[in-house]
Amino acid sequence: MARVFETEPAAYFTVASLLLRWLKNKSREAAGVAAPLLGCSPHKDGRRRKRHACRCPWQFNCPQKIRQNPSSSAGQRFPLSDVIEAQQFDRDLLGRIFDVAGVMEDLEKDTDAHNILKGLAGEVLTTENAREFSSAAKGETLEDTIRTVEGYSDIIVLRHFKSGAAKQAAAAATIPVINAGDGPGQHPTQALLDVYTIQREIGRLDDIKVGLVGDLANGRTVRSLAYLLGKYHGVKLFFVAPDVVKMKDDIKDYLTSKDVEWEETSDLMDVASKCDVVYQTRIQRERFSDRTDLYAEARGKFIVDKHTMSRLQSHAVVLHPLPRLDEITVDVDSDPCAAYFRQAKNGLYIRMALLKLLLKVRCRRAFKS
Amino acid sequence: MARVFETEPAAYFTVASLLLRWLKNKSREAAGVAAPLLGCSPHKDGRRRKRHACRCPWQFNCPQKIRQNPSSSAGQRFPLSDVIEAQQFDRDLLGRIFDVAGVMEDLEKDTDAHNILKGLAGEVLTTENAREFSSAAKGETLEDTIRTVEGYSDIIVLRHFKSGAAKQAAAAATIPVINAGDGPGQHPTQALLDVYTIQREIGRLDDIKVGLVGDLANGRTVRSLAYLLGKYHGVKLFFVAPDVVKMKDDIKDYLTSKDVEWEETSDLMDVASKCDVVYQTRIQRERFSDRTDLYAEARGKFIVDKHTMSRLQSHAVVLHPLPRLDEITVDVDSDPCAAYFRQAKNGLYIRMALLKLLLKVRCRRAFKS
Amino acid sequence: MARVFETEPAAYFTVASLLLRWLKNKSREAAGVAAPLLGCSPHKDGRRRKRHACRCPWQFNCPQKIRQNPSSSAGQRFPLSDVIEAQQFDRDLLGRIFDVAGVMEDLEKDTDAHNILKGLAGEVLTTENAREFSSAAKGETLEDTIRTVEGYSDIIVLRHFKSGAAKQAAAAATIPVINAGDGPGQHPTQALLDVYTIQREIGRLDDIKVGLVGDLANGRTVRSLAYLLGKYHGVKLFFVAPDVVKMKDDIKDYLTSKDVEWEETSDLMDVASKCDVVYQTRIQRERFSDRTDLYAEARGKFIVDKHTMSRLQSHAVVLHPLPRLDEITVDVDSDPCAAYFRQAKNGLYIRMALLKLLLKVRCRRAFKS
Repeated sequence: MARVFETEPAAYFTVASLLLRWLKNKSREAAGVAAPLLGCSPHKDGRRRKRHACRCPWQFNCPQKIRQNPSSSAGQRFPLSDVIEAQQFDRDLLGRIFDVAGVMEDLEKDTDAHNILKGLAGEVLTTENAREFSSAAKGETLEDTIRTVEGYSDIIVLRHFKSGAAKQAAAAATIPVINAGDGPGQHPTQALLDVYTIQREIGRLDDIKVGLVGDLANGRTVRSLAYLLGKYHGVKLFFVAPDVVKMKDDIKDYLTSKDVEWEETSDLMDVASKCDVVYQTRIQRERFSDRTDLYAEARGKFIVDKHTMSRLQSHAVVLHPLPRLDEITVDVDSDPCAAYFRQAKNGLYIRMALLKLLLKVRCRRAFKS
Repeated sequence: MARVFETEPAAYFTVASLLLRWLKNKSREAAGVAAPLLGCSPHKDGRRRKRHACRCPWQFNCPQKIRQNPSSSAGQRFPLSDVIEAQQFDRDLLGRIFDVAGVMEDLEKDTDAHNILKGLAGEVLTTENAREFSSAAKGETLEDTIRTVEGYSDIIVLRHFKSGAAKQAAAAATIPVINAGDGPGQHPTQALLDVYTIQREIGRLDDIKVGLVGDLANGRTVRSLAYLLGKYHGVKLFFVAPDVVKMKDDIKDYLTSKDVEWEETSDLMDVASKCDVVYQTRIQRERFSDRTDLYAEARGKFIVDKHTMSRLQSHAVVLHPLPRLDEITVDVDSDPCAAYFRQAKNGLYIRMALLKLLLKVRCRRAFKS
Repeated sequence: MARVFETEPAAYFTVASLLLRWLKNKSREAAGVAAPLLGCSPHKDGRRRKRHACRCPWQFNCPQKIRQNPSSSAGQRFPLSDVIEAQQFDRDLLGRIFDVAGVMEDLEKDTDAHNILKGLAGEVLTTENAREFSSAAKGETLEDTIRTVEGYSDIIVLRHFKSGAAKQAAAAATIPVINAGDGPGQHPTQALLDVYTIQREIGRLDDIKVGLVGDLANGRTVRSLAYLLGKYHGVKLFFVAPDVVKMKDDIKDYLTSKDVEWEETSDLMDVASKCDVVYQTRIQRERFSDRTDLYAEARGKFIVDKHTMSRLQSHAVVLHPLPRLDEITVDVDSDPCAAYFRQAKNGLYIRMALLKLLLKVRCRRAFKS
């Protein structure tokens, strides 16, 4: 509990705000009040349509469409009460989350909304507060901490050093728990924003070629991404990793069982020219303990630079979970195919969507009881 | 100053929000606008009455009643301008705080309100900001820190390692100061939520039997609780403590002077069967320095487990200030008589009430000047 | 990035709130709705005029005046997109910032506004979030951190241990960056609030005599203040410093080039009797490493005490950037000429003004695109 939000606090922070506005807005709609934020006023519609037109083609998650017939997702109840691991998601669920993420993006892009919303953060319990709560120093169990914290919050976003802590917290909590990474364990929100980014950038998740590069043995993100891509059709994966950190068999076997083609190679150039997505990752020093020689060798092996970019197809993109060291050279950042900062921003929309969907569940409960 | 909110930030955080809404709501009432939050709309009234009916019987702090004739507390000015120590409270003052706490609970339970309110936190200066302010490292005095901080806040909630720091801060501040615990000193808000919990759970504070168990020599909370119970009639206290951490004479003498019956015993089972409230506390390791043998002996001596619970009268409850180690076994948590998590939640309402009452004072001032 | 807001978080925090309200208010005006916050309601006007009358005479920054013909500043676009160093400001720009600061002060003084606004903080990314973002531990560059953070914020207020970090951040960021102090480098907001305080307390910045006392060699604030005063006419500066920490030649040469009279002296009493402003600073222990003898000697040399105050002209004031140790004796605090806590509060208004002016730029952009 001591490290809630450790890597993406502002994301959740802002997310909470936007979500809040969303909920208020909903109630205002219910009250028969016009909902400018959702673009009902002609003026706003105009602005949004313009923005919308000049944006990369939406697929199934066009906010306009959703607003016109929100049935799709609004219809059924969101089936999850916690977000703990990538295994919870199938392609339908991902689609529904993407729908909401699209609306959230649209909502966040509204300048007026933006100004107003940013101020409303705080709905989600922040690191600091959580840290204070964790009386771990005094020997309190995670369960007790959660049961105390939930008295003051709507939802718990947990980042914890211990693998399995999120599951443990969800079991103890009566409010939704989102796993923001539990040690070497899962980090589902990163996995979701990765697939959402591919959807937004490439326009589809079926029939794509993805190259996973770097530390495939220890990288949580590549493992989760490979897992989620297993839910789609006609996916082909290329594993480009130094020998010491190759993709492990559990994922390979899973992919095979899902009829996902995969191939190991050390020819990054060839992969760059073939793939829709090149997903680069950092070689993590801490994995090599004192074998600095192995680290140095692994780290320098596969670098994405201008030369690599030149091989990409025009529609292809390079992703990276960040932070990056030198596995992508800085001179690449300005290339439109370098999508890793857009990817980071997408984290905002995905988390907004999760908060909205999870809290919606909870509000229903509250109203029922 | 470096540790404002250390143990209960979220409490104050949310509290600030709810309070904020409360104030805004008040002004809306003044402006002759309907105040749905206070249940004026039939629908809400309905919902609230339902919730209210199925809640344990309110005593003098029924929110409905207060809303119907708010004269009671609204009438006179709240006499305190700071909350520093338990000695500031008598039973009338406690009654008024409980009244407001009841309304706050009702307010916080409103789902719509809840969603909207959570977003408004930030009115109270949080740990982090406070920490930054404490230029203690550069040798700044607490007085200077307070005089700088008060320029940016409505109220200061101070947690400090130094006994007496709260009094010192209150002397320097022109805005209200709430003592959230100053080292071995007082922790009045914990004491208030303890008596409030007894009132809510048992329905009265007069004519009750309370067993205080564990570290009675060093535990701030049991000492303050004993003190406050001295304000009520027909109270009997049982002290159940290992020899090394027995209740000290100052409290015993005070109770005697107040005609409060008290008795020392080591028969926890007998106490459990007689008492309305069993207040268990943690044996604090840090109090034993290197005498780990004494610690081990003291720690294992009085445990509340299923066996103990079986002896309780059906209306009795077990309280604990938390965090707890093994002095209450986990298998007891599900027992309806285990009230310690409800107790923690009550901290929210008591602090809301204090903030409201203290800020009300201040607003008046502001309007006068 | 790890130290955003280190010394004045709450300032920015509240500032963000007030600013937010300001923006919302503006849009409400546009929407033809009455804007009580700006004193359109007779009642408020009355209250404000009263307050206004009994305030020290406003110069060009009377909020009333600005509200009546806001053209002055509202007219042209604010020329800065970041606030990095004192050298960015000339007297016109300072005047415009002071105008807005005056309105902000007026706004913040509104009690109702106050209560409502405090709750809206969070628009500015806070220390904590920023700290989490700084994946510096993992070797992330400041540029990458900034490019990630800006996805979640409207403006970045950076405090950093490395000199030049602010400039570096501003170069990487597409949103405004405010330098809240980068190591031994600049701290422009402190410099701005210092001149703003002189304007508010003395009523002018031309034709003033200012005594700079204490560590003039290392003190960022005195160096920046001297720089900014170089923009005004008929200024005379007195440097009162222990030999080891005398004002450096770069500033002296700059002042000479600007026809600013300056004089070095060790007669604090004489300076006190001549000056409009005595600006006292702390002798910073860390500057003396192990030469504790030199530190002790320097530290005791120039103390502002009751005796010194007795020499001040009635309209003169003593300023100090805070924190202070014993270079100003505590018994002086109650003297109306001791303006250092009012000075600290002015930081709120200056930062509000900067946020408003910088974000206004940005909103325009947003609307254009």
